[in-house]
Amino acid sequence: MNNTKPTLFTSLSPALLHLYDVNNSVVVIIDVLRATSTIATALYNGAKCIIPVDSVSRCIEIGKQIEGITAGERDGKVAEGLVHGNSPFEYPKDFIEGKTLVLTTTNGTRLLQMALDKGAGEIITGSFPNLSAVCDHLAAIKQPVILGCAAWKDRVNMEDMLFAGAVISRIKGHFSINCDSSHLAETIYKKAEKDLFGFMKKNDASHYHRLMGFGLEKDIRYCLEIDTANVLPVYRDGKLVIKEF
Amino acid sequence: MNNTKPTLFTSLSPALLHLYDVNNSVVVIIDVLRATSTIATALYNGAKCIIPVDSVSRCIEIGKQIEGITAGERDGKVAEGLVHGNSPFEYPKDFIEGKTLVLTTTNGTRLLQMALDKGAGEIITGSFPNLSAVCDHLAAIKQPVILGCAAWKDRVNMEDMLFAGAVISRIKGHFSINCDSSHLAETIYKKAEKDLFGFMKKNDASHYHRLMGFGLEKDIRYCLEIDTANVLPVYRDGKLVIKEF
Repeated sequence: MNNTKPTLFTSLSPALLHLYDVNNSVVVIIDVLRATSTIATALYNGAKCIIPVDSVSRCIEIGKQIEGITAGERDGKVAEGLVHGNSPFEYPKDFIEGKTLVLTTTNGTRLLQMALDKGAGEIITGSFPNLSAVCDHLAAIKQPVILGCAAWKDRVNMEDMLFAGAVISRIKGHFSINCDSSHLAETIYKKAEKDLFGFMKKNDASHYHRLMGFGLEKDIRYCLEIDTANVLPVYRDGKLVIKEF
Repeated sequence: MNNTKPTLFTSLSPALLHLYDVNNSVVVIIDVLRATSTIATALYNGAKCIIPVDSVSRCIEIGKQIEGITAGERDGKVAEGLVHGNSPFEYPKDFIEGKTLVLTTTNGTRLLQMALDKGAGEIITGSFPNLSAVCDHLAAIKQPVILGCAAWKDRVNMEDMLFAGAVISRIKGHFSINCDSSHLAETIYKKAEKDLFGFMKKNDASHYHRLMGFGLEKDIRYCLEIDTANVLPVYRDGKLVIKEF
């Protein structure tokens, strides 16, 4: 009965996305440290919506037009000209509730734009804080899925592959998976799942070192925690909003 | 003292090679199933040299000019118009000794050409049958290294990542490795090393299924065996020859 199941592929880098049939697939944008963790958190805490944009100048422009909160990072730090950064801790309920966040990030928003340009049927965002929401949705919809890792400047990274593996380990029974990247991701996740932070540290993850260097251990730990902001962000008409079922 | 060590990166797909500083690096071409296993084997069994070419028509043309043995595959089978395929078992000593092999393969020769075009300082080929020769050389030369996986039509594959991990697990002490792909490859290898064939089978490696479908279990098992053809193929003046020390 395997051939009646929809396919699932993992694209480990935006530079590999063109290898997969994005058109009409559900694409999960994965940028664990920290864009998609922050997106889930801001929406969970009541943000009206999040407008992802691909450049700092456009972020500033749109922020002015709609009186939104401009936020984003380049190379892991608050981008020049923007007011807020990419940390989930910047968006507690008493600050973000009812507001619109205009967000630009190094890798995540660029991948989202690519998926959009390639005709993705649906675009959602995933990270450990909303793992269950992502898995429940993918298991239910019975459509082809591409897990799209945002990576780091197109280089494969550990945390996005770990999240892809977490999704696969939970929902693989619903899909036909002929994709070594997916099987590798699952293997890595199974090895790491008991202590994701410890695994990143022990295996010298580049992003672990980059963020630790900025004093952001708290951010890393939060972004690797499961279901702390368990909503499903979906991209509609230029905005990320919580998907209602 | 880490910063005095040369760097090592792993490129998991030819589509990612441009992210690394190929120029003046030693590039290891990795195409475990089966090109680089066959290259090591043919040279170990006494082939004079191997001329890797990127197309079947060029393979036929050069084969005629030099009276070489034309060989190659497309999609895992002997390519139309060529006499031999890509199995290491086609090149025993009593057949190949003293002869020139003109070889074209789906992924391996294309990656070699890319590394050449990008100005690699040295190009060698690696696979489990010549693991120790590759590791001994890389540990000795003290130059930047890129482990280049040939993958499958640019999609990351299990066996090439496993070989990269095997190399890294042996020689990482000689290099500065700030590369998640490398750390992930090593983790995967450590998980698999006791039974590489079993790991490929259990984790549904796409190439495992493709070659098993052609009845080539023997080839898979041979290509995952360590040091059975332990020579170092190096690319010089358009040919792969055994590097003499």
